[in-house]
Amino acid sequence: MNTKFKTYWEDFKVGNRESIGSVVVDRDEVIEFATRYDPQPFHVDEEAAKQSIYGGLIASGWHTCSMLMRLMCDAYMLESASLGSPGLENVRWLRPVRPGDTLTAYRTIEETRLSGSRPDRGIVKTLWEVENQKGELVLTMSGVNFFLKRQAG
Amino acid sequence: MNTKFKTYWEDFKVGNRESIGSVVVDRDEVIEFATRYDPQPFHVDEEAAKQSIYGGLIASGWHTCSMLMRLMCDAYMLESASLGSPGLENVRWLRPVRPGDTLTAYRTIEETRLSGSRPDRGIVKTLWEVENQKGELVLTMSGVNFFLKRQAG
Repeated sequence: MNTKFKTYWEDFKVGNRESIGSVVVDRDEVIEFATRYDPQPFHVDEEAAKQSIYGGLIASGWHTCSMLMRLMCDAYMLESASLGSPGLENVRWLRPVRPGDTLTAYRTIEETRLSGSRPDRGIVKTLWEVENQKGELVLTMSGVNFFLKRQAG
Repeated sequence: MNTKFKTYWEDFKVGNRESIGSVVVDRDEVIEFATRYDPQPFHVDEEAAKQSIYGGLIASGWHTCSMLMRLMCDAYMLESASLGSPGLENVRWLRPVRPGDTLTAYRTIEETRLSGSRPDRGIVKTLWEVENQKGELVLTMSGVNFFLKRQAG
């Protein structure tokens, strides 16, 4: 039986929606991330953002996804037997994310199954939902991850 | 007729796959990005990565997506009447991305249509494919973007 990690495939149970934590969106980080990876005016230029359809600076959608990833890591991924992810479905940036917003992420396990080809691992499908401080959904997506099994073989 | 930007909705034509540019994956940046947003061992720790199923350091999938976003920006997005994106489908991290890899991104316009509710804009659906220097696909996804029309109304 594997004991190196806290969380293995067997620990994911289909069901309840639970919080994995919160993050406050930092203005400087919004600009820094977007300057590097997504320098559209409404992500990097306060004045241009005011004139845009968004009415002010908003975070790059990739930055919001990356903040969610960090919450996942801190909540359980770093202490898990994670083997990475093959992909995502239904990524939806539903509302603008603005500096100063508090984002809270929720995890719902949608499906768990054994790998068909590798007996040492299983697959977990998860619905991710991120809300702002008003309780409005700003990001949803479904992700797939591979995890080693605690009971190998 | 709008003339502020180089590219409006009318300029996207369904069809050909074309390159939007290349980027070399920088080792320090792989570690820096992942330390902030995705600190799993195989993204941040050279020794742990060697012991993992990946056999060495690999970029966070979010970092690869962000590098693709920057290529989009430089190729045309920054000079376009882009209004942002509501989301993505079918994100697939197909192969590991490693420091030193040269990634080349390809764009195929899959669909263009007018907005049903807003006569000043249209919708563009795009298939994104990212290959490494061996011609292997490492990332594919379909994205949706809104763009203003050149001919308003």
